[in-house]
Amino acid sequence: MSHISVQASPLPVAPEADPYPSRVANKPQITARQDPVVYGKAIEGPLDEQALAQYEENGFLQFDALLQLDELESVIQELDRLRQDEALKATPQCVIEPESRETRSIFAVHEISAIMRGLCAHPKLAAIAQQLLGSEVYVHQSRINFKQGFHGEPFYWHSDFETWHVEDGMPSMRAVSCSIALTANLPYNGPLMLIPGSHRHFVSCVGETPEDHYKQSLRRQELGVPDEDSLTQLVRNGGVVSPTGPVGSVTFFECNTMHGSNSNITPYPRSNFFVVYNSIENPLVDPFCGLPPRPNHISERQRLIRVKDL
Amino acid sequence: MSHISVQASPLPVAPEADPYPSRVANKPQITARQDPVVYGKAIEGPLDEQALAQYEENGFLQFDALLQLDELESVIQELDRLRQDEALKATPQCVIEPESRETRSIFAVHEISAIMRGLCAHPKLAAIAQQLLGSEVYVHQSRINFKQGFHGEPFYWHSDFETWHVEDGMPSMRAVSCSIALTANLPYNGPLMLIPGSHRHFVSCVGETPEDHYKQSLRRQELGVPDEDSLTQLVRNGGVVSPTGPVGSVTFFECNTMHGSNSNITPYPRSNFFVVYNSIENPLVDPFCGLPPRPNHISERQRLIRVKDL
Repeated sequence: MSHISVQASPLPVAPEADPYPSRVANKPQITARQDPVVYGKAIEGPLDEQALAQYEENGFLQFDALLQLDELESVIQELDRLRQDEALKATPQCVIEPESRETRSIFAVHEISAIMRGLCAHPKLAAIAQQLLGSEVYVHQSRINFKQGFHGEPFYWHSDFETWHVEDGMPSMRAVSCSIALTANLPYNGPLMLIPGSHRHFVSCVGETPEDHYKQSLRRQELGVPDEDSLTQLVRNGGVVSPTGPVGSVTFFECNTMHGSNSNITPYPRSNFFVVYNSIENPLVDPFCGLPPRPNHISERQRLIRVKDL
Repeated sequence: MSHISVQASPLPVAPEADPYPSRVANKPQITARQDPVVYGKAIEGPLDEQALAQYEENGFLQFDALLQLDELESVIQELDRLRQDEALKATPQCVIEPESRETRSIFAVHEISAIMRGLCAHPKLAAIAQQLLGSEVYVHQSRINFKQGFHGEPFYWHSDFETWHVEDGMPSMRAVSCSIALTANLPYNGPLMLIPGSHRHFVSCVGETPEDHYKQSLRRQELGVPDEDSLTQLVRNGGVVSPTGPVGSVTFFECNTMHGSNSNITPYPRSNFFVVYNSIENPLVDPFCGLPPRPNHISERQRLIRVKDL
C-alpha cells in the first residue's frame, strides 16, 4: 500500500458558483443534473454498450454473480470478526443501533482490514468504476452496513451526493457506490431500493446543516431528507426497484441515485459491504454548507490513493 | 341485518385445562397444535382437494384475483371516507400512528359501514371460510389496516390466535383471517409476510398480560411477542413468504399462522381490509389470562351473527 498524498483544494466555493445548492432554501426544488452520468470512453472496461446505456438511463447496474462465493469466504469471516470487535465498537468509525446497541455500520474498513482493502481493490470492481467514471478512482468511503434480523431499522430515502456535496464538498457527480451482498439480499429482509432515473435530477433539501450533524445523522437521518412531493414525482417517473441476489451479487449505483431500504423483522440479517469510488479528477473541496468537513473516516480528503495502488 | 344474539359461555376455564397456555411461564415453548387445520368435509365449498391440502400444509391460501376491481370500487371510496373521518379518529375503534397521528387501523368497520358489512358477507369469501372451518361462521373481527407511504411502520411477528386465546378467550384454533388488498401489495411497500407451516405449532410467549393491554398493544406490540429463537426455528422449517398482488387479491391465513410485515418508506400506501371469520361452534369464553375481556369492537362476543344473516 503506497501513501501518495494528493492535497484537496482548500479554496472555498462562492455560493453563487454552487451548481447543486441544498439546505439553503425554505422550499425543496428539483433541478436538472449538470454532470455526465457515464464519463466518456477514456477508459476501456468490461461493460458493453448496452450496460453503459442502462446505467446512463437508470442510474444503477445489478450483477447477480460478479464475485464468487469462494473469493468472499475470508471477507465474510472478517465481517463477523469486525462486528464482534468490542474495542472497535467504542471508536467513532462504528455506528451503533440506538435501541439494540448492535453495530449498524463500520466506516473506513479498508483502513483497518487488509482483507477489506483487498476487496475495495478487486480488479473486477475497480475496472467497472474506472470505466463509468472515465478516470482512475480512489476510495472516497468504505463501510459495512449490518442490517440485523428481527430489529433491522429502515434507511430513509436519500441521495448520497446531496450529503457528500453539502457536508463533504464533493464538487461534481462523478462517484459511484458499489454494494456487495455478504448475506443474501431477499425481497423481505430490507434490501436496497432504488428509484430508476432519479440520478438525472437533483433534489435540494430544506433546512440548514448544524455543526457535527453527522454524529446524529448516521444513526437517524433527519436533515438532508428529500421531501415527499419530490420523492413521489421521482417514483411516478421511474418507479421503485429492489435488486435482490445471493452472496456475491453486486449493485453499482450512481452517487445521486435516490435510494433507501425498509426495516427487517425476518431472522435473516442483511449485511452489505459498500465501497464508494470517486474520480481522481473530482477531489473534495471545502464543504458547500460552509462548516468544517466531516471526519476522514466518513469522507476521504487526505490520502487519495489510486485503487490500483491500494 | 338480523341481530340474533348467541351468548358465549361465561364459565371460566381452569388453567390446567388450557391447551394453549401462554404468558404464564418464564421461558417460551413450542408445542404441537391440538386442533385440526381443515375442519372435516361437512360443508361443500369452492376449494378443491389440492387447495385444501395446501392450506393444511402451509396455513394460508393466496388468490390473485378473487374479487374484481369493479366490485371493489365502492369499497375503496368508503376506505378513503373512513380514513378521513375526524369524528371516527376520536373513537376507540380507531388506532392512530404514534408519530404522524394518521389513522393506522379502524376496527369493527362492518358495524359502522354497510359497504364494509357487505364485503364481510361476500359469498365468495364466506364460502371459503365455511369450507375451511367446517361450519357456519360469524365475524370475530373486522378492520382496515392503513400502512401509509413514507412512514408506514412495521408490524412485528405474531400469531393472532395467541392474543385471541389469551386476551379474548377464543378456545380453539378454528378461525381464519381474510386479507383483501385495497391497494396493490408490492414486495417493497410492507406486504404481509407469513411463515409457512407455523400454524402447526403453538409458540407460548413469556410475561404476564397487564390490564387494558390492548390500548397500547394495538399501537406497538410488546407483549404476546414470540421470542427470536422460536421464530428462527419456525423460519428454518418453513421459510418466509410474502404474497403480493393487485387490488382485489386475497390472502386467507389460519388464525395461528405466524405473520408480520416490514416498514413502508415508498410513496405507495398499503391498505388492506381484514375480516376474521370464526366458527359458530368456537364462541369466546372468558379470557385465559383471567382478566376482563377486550372491548367488543376488537373481539366480538355479543352478537354472533351468522355471515349469511349479516
